Amino acid sequence: MYDVRTDLALEAKERAESLSGGTIPGVWTETEREGGITVTRMEIQTEQGAQAIGKMQGNYVTLEVPELRRGDTELQNRVATAFAREFEAFLARIGVGPKTSVMVVGLGNGKVTPDALGPIVVDNLMVTRQFFELMPDQVGEGYRPVSAIAPGVLGTTGIESSDIVLGAVQQAKPELVIAIDALAARSLERVNTTIQIADTGIHPGSGIGNKRKGLTRATLGVPVLAIGVPTVLYASTIVNDAMDMVLEHMKQHTRDTDPLFGVFGTMAGQERLQLVKEVLQPVGHDLLVTPKEIDDFIEDLGNIVASGLNAAMHQAIDTDNVAAYTH
Amino acid sequence: MYDVRTDLALEAKERAESLSGGTIPGVWTETEREGGITVTRMEIQTEQGAQAIGKMQGNYVTLEVPELRRGDTELQNRVATAFAREFEAFLARIGVGPKTSVMVVGLGNGKVTPDALGPIVVDNLMVTRQFFELMPDQVGEGYRPVSAIAPGVLGTTGIESSDIVLGAVQQAKPELVIAIDALAARSLERVNTTIQIADTGIHPGSGIGNKRKGLTRATLGVPVLAIGVPTVLYASTIVNDAMDMVLEHMKQHTRDTDPLFGVFGTMAGQERLQLVKEVLQPVGHDLLVTPKEIDDFIEDLGNIVASGLNAAMHQAIDTDNVAAYTH
Amino acid sequence: MYDVRTDLALEAKERAESLSGGTIPGVWTETEREGGITVTRMEIQTEQGAQAIGKMQGNYVTLEVPELRRGDTELQNRVATAFAREFEAFLARIGVGPKTSVMVVGLGNGKVTPDALGPIVVDNLMVTRQFFELMPDQVGEGYRPVSAIAPGVLGTTGIESSDIVLGAVQQAKPELVIAIDALAARSLERVNTTIQIADTGIHPGSGIGNKRKGLTRATLGVPVLAIGVPTVLYASTIVNDAMDMVLEHMKQHTRDTDPLFGVFGTMAGQERLQLVKEVLQPVGHDLLVTPKEIDDFIEDLGNIVASGLNAAMHQAIDTDNVAAYTH
Amino acid sequence: MYDVRTDLALEAKERAESLSGGTIPGVWTETEREGGITVTRMEIQTEQGAQAIGKMQGNYVTLEVPELRRGDTELQNRVATAFAREFEAFLARIGVGPKTSVMVVGLGNGKVTPDALGPIVVDNLMVTRQFFELMPDQVGEGYRPVSAIAPGVLGTTGIESSDIVLGAVQQAKPELVIAIDALAARSLERVNTTIQIADTGIHPGSGIGNKRKGLTRATLGVPVLAIGVPTVLYASTIVNDAMDMVLEHMKQHTRDTDPLFGVFGTMAGQERLQLVKEVLQPVGHDLLVTPKEIDDFIEDLGNIVASGLNAAMHQAIDTDNVAAYTH
Repeated sequence: MYDVRTDLALEAKERAESLSGGTIPGVWTETEREGGITVTRMEIQTEQGAQAIGKMQGNYVTLEVPELRRGDTELQNRVATAFAREFEAFLARIGVGPKTSVMVVGLGNGKVTPDALGPIVVDNLMVTRQFFELMPDQVGEGYRPVSAIAPGVLGTTGIESSDIVLGAVQQAKPELVIAIDALAARSLERVNTTIQIADTGIHPGSGIGNKRKGLTRATLGVPVLAIGVPTVLYASTIVNDAMDMVLEHMKQHTRDTDPLFGVFGTMAGQERLQLVKEVLQPVGHDLLVTPKEIDDFIEDLGNIVASGLNAAMHQAIDTDNVAAYTH
Repeated sequence: MYDVRTDLALEAKERAESLSGGTIPGVWTETEREGGITVTRMEIQTEQGAQAIGKMQGNYVTLEVPELRRGDTELQNRVATAFAREFEAFLARIGVGPKTSVMVVGLGNGKVTPDALGPIVVDNLMVTRQFFELMPDQVGEGYRPVSAIAPGVLGTTGIESSDIVLGAVQQAKPELVIAIDALAARSLERVNTTIQIADTGIHPGSGIGNKRKGLTRATLGVPVLAIGVPTVLYASTIVNDAMDMVLEHMKQHTRDTDPLFGVFGTMAGQERLQLVKEVLQPVGHDLLVTPKEIDDFIEDLGNIVASGLNAAMHQAIDTDNVAAYTH
Repeated sequence: MYDVRTDLALEAKERAESLSGGTIPGVWTETEREGGITVTRMEIQTEQGAQAIGKMQGNYVTLEVPELRRGDTELQNRVATAFAREFEAFLARIGVGPKTSVMVVGLGNGKVTPDALGPIVVDNLMVTRQFFELMPDQVGEGYRPVSAIAPGVLGTTGIESSDIVLGAVQQAKPELVIAIDALAARSLERVNTTIQIADTGIHPGSGIGNKRKGLTRATLGVPVLAIGVPTVLYASTIVNDAMDMVLEHMKQHTRDTDPLFGVFGTMAGQERLQLVKEVLQPVGHDLLVTPKEIDDFIEDLGNIVASGLNAAMHQAIDTDNVAAYTH
Repeated sequence: MYDVRTDLALEAKERAESLSGGTIPGVWTETEREGGITVTRMEIQTEQGAQAIGKMQGNYVTLEVPELRRGDTELQNRVATAFAREFEAFLARIGVGPKTSVMVVGLGNGKVTPDALGPIVVDNLMVTRQFFELMPDQVGEGYRPVSAIAPGVLGTTGIESSDIVLGAVQQAKPELVIAIDALAARSLERVNTTIQIADTGIHPGSGIGNKRKGLTRATLGVPVLAIGVPTVLYASTIVNDAMDMVLEHMKQHTRDTDPLFGVFGTMAGQERLQLVKEVLQPVGHDLLVTPKEIDDFIEDLGNIVASGLNAAMHQAIDTDNVAAYTH
């Protein structure tokens, strides 16, 4: 399995295809483009497909919005609406009804801006479980019981976030968990412009915080959906990715088989990445980096995901005007 | 039981004494004053004492520091040190050894400044449980396993904070819980100048957030110590308290039994408070209020409690220089 | 002049009327009520009126919204719209045209929650001056040049905020200054529920921060409008105000002229306040206090004022949907 | 002049040397290493030197602390002390006496974490000018008048920060301005590990915010010292820098003159950078990026600079224990 770190199944698939030079058996995809938003629905159907890509079997939906970093409010509202619709369809596809109780888990460290997506979503969510518990007769039509926690990170609580979530699940007894997490991508253009939905849960080592334990149906006893947004990438993958592009560019702009990149150009991707890492590690290129404007980006993304979730989870909230329900 | 709301056992006792005109049987106290810090150790020893005061049987230690709102760093360091010593003695008195594992629970809403004491303490605590779990051989001498969570409030999580704590306790299995909470006082002079330690746990209705369930040995299965700082008080108690003082002042400054306050002056405290409430409620005097400078006060108090706790919990941290270990 | 501190002209007038037992000559008012919002337009027309009330000659508009602390988003939007309309009419009345350049000054300390109104408004304002300076041909119709600064407070900058504003005015050369400030009220029900507009500028000693110098046409060379919201009040005025109410209540509920409050009841307001202050000062009742929920209130009020200002200042922004233009 | 963007004179010099293959005439340097801190003092003495390096004539001191990102409190205290000593010596060298009045200017946008260095330093500074103005007789020995402002950025105020500073300087009349700014570096290892002091002022286009006007003796009428810390770098310079390193590494590890990098390897730096930019621009590699942990780094750096400045500016503050005076 190729070891360029990405939490996006779509990137992992692209990478596997580029290495193998063809499509990956056991992986189904379909893509729709509209108004600057590309939606890719993907299913990893076989263990062979999972191995080839390096991601779990299951369903993935990815929204790519290259212009999302421009801070355009109108586009953000359209993305929230598209996300709400995809998520609603996703819930229907896996058989989650409109009354199923949900716990939303905002993973990550709220004091580390690029890792704060989960806590920000939790802060902006319409939480309703307390009304169902305390005054069930007075809850209006079109709502479901929703609770929300931000379990913190091991370094500041001393407890695995998965253990805190398990404890909360055992007490509040939701029928479904939706976990939100900030992710690492392989390519800079996807950072803060992409939202991934998956029904595979959260797996050890994924996300910014490098969880040691996952959040899955096996560990929590209820299905776990994952919503992720890449907010960081490794400096070394920026370099390697860029080298690929430059090499590709030079190949296309030269007539014959000149030794353009020399030995370096003929190295296999794996080998070259190894070299890049070896050279860069001593000078700190193994850092995770994030765009300078991360404060605004994470705030915007948190609002998009929270308002989309509010609309997708509660039938009483109109999917066409999702933004009005976030605070 | 008198219904002027206070979470401070010391105020409840003073009130009970002022009403009954004498000392309360079944309540033991001792007081020490040094360098602007008054420490009162109190034990409510009988059910009769508990009834008279309106607080649970148990041990209470109160630090009163009238000058604490002045923002004097040197005084703050001395208060942290005094708090560390009192808390260490408290632990010893109730038989908690230096290796006992502890979970610190920061109650309250981190986004509501006067209710953020608990979350701020948790943010500044030295958390060590993860090292004991992951690399027990490498933990230095003089530390104990400490974990820390801020469970949020019902209105933003949809789950009782006590349920989240119970879930976390079942997973992390501490032998002792220390719960930090912001409190309501009866007198303005005690707001943001007082720290209370108690071995009674947290009881329903106490603290700013008006918990519906408590945190006690009965609910969590392990002993629960409570650390509280009053940060708010009711506008109506400011008024009633002030009326008492003015009445008292006028009594002392007049020779004979002139009908100074007239009918109002002769009303019993209970009856007068009822009247005050009745008149003020329609115009919103039943609001909880806090001093204008609450941002600075809560930050300072959070640091004092966190650095004091760090020193009291870990023998490796010198009680004489507690401030150095907070971030 | 009566010395209960209030920055609201409306409260000062009420107080003067209650003391004199009648209307104040030289002061004109009109009042409109609709949908839970009371708008009072007031003009202090003579020096005699100004003296009686203790406020400067000039025009004042006050919006009172008793339910504003309930956090009702729909009401907040209506208040922003009402404020925008009143402010637009105010600009028209004093002859400010749609192209006049404006500098908005957010007074107060952004790190002290109840004093952060001005800085929050500045953060949420649509600032356009840079486009008029750098690319005047490309600015759309219906906008005016707006700049915005938050000058900080003397304690953290070492410079009078009025001096920083004067420096900025001399550089940016606006034709009008609009200063936003958090105020002190006399009655708790008006705190965080009232917005005052005035064409008198900001005067020394007003606002939470107790400015030593004012912001007026005399000091800045251009007209200065002031927008203020009371966010604090003195603990001692809560007490005095409450005593008045209780006394009044008792008078109304007794048949004859019983010596209800005794000597205290017959004291003049001035004298009684003096007594209250004398008694309470040693125990810290001269503190300014604010409601516990100040974080939410100040955020909501900042958004109302900012979105109202955006709509009132730029004709291109529809007064009917002011909230859409704040971030 | 080479166009890889860096605000560090030291990097610009290294780059110029690497391109020319030798030392640059007209540039003097000396270097000291102690306890993990490398101090380089540099003077660009001639116009020719300035041209070669692409930086202004003047004095530069650079502190490099490769381990600074580890969050080691003890190292941070030593860096603050070293910075205080270098800055004190710098002040002495350019003839600034102990009573000279100073205005500290915190450039940048406080809401954009990697650009918030200046505002954070201003928040943590010991400001004294108000005492000299209001009660000059009571100011203790060993202090000078210090004021501090954070002028914001053009995008949020509508006014050039240099204009706001000029206005403030004309009002407060300091004899010296010290401007703090977040910078861009060329190499990732210097980001958040380097502090630069210069007596050249702030020049247009420098710093993260790309000022359009500078802050210099010419514009402000008083000398301007600049303190800068690189907190960001361009994704494309990470790539180019890495390619240099990889190429260099491969050269050193091969016996003969194999066409290792092929055509790419033989391109001049300038030409290669152009190619890299051309290829990467469409996919967003011209973003400025910052390490994931920027919240902690900027807080630590702000404290180091503020505490160092406090000690260097006020003789009453002991340079050996600088950290105690920051809040």
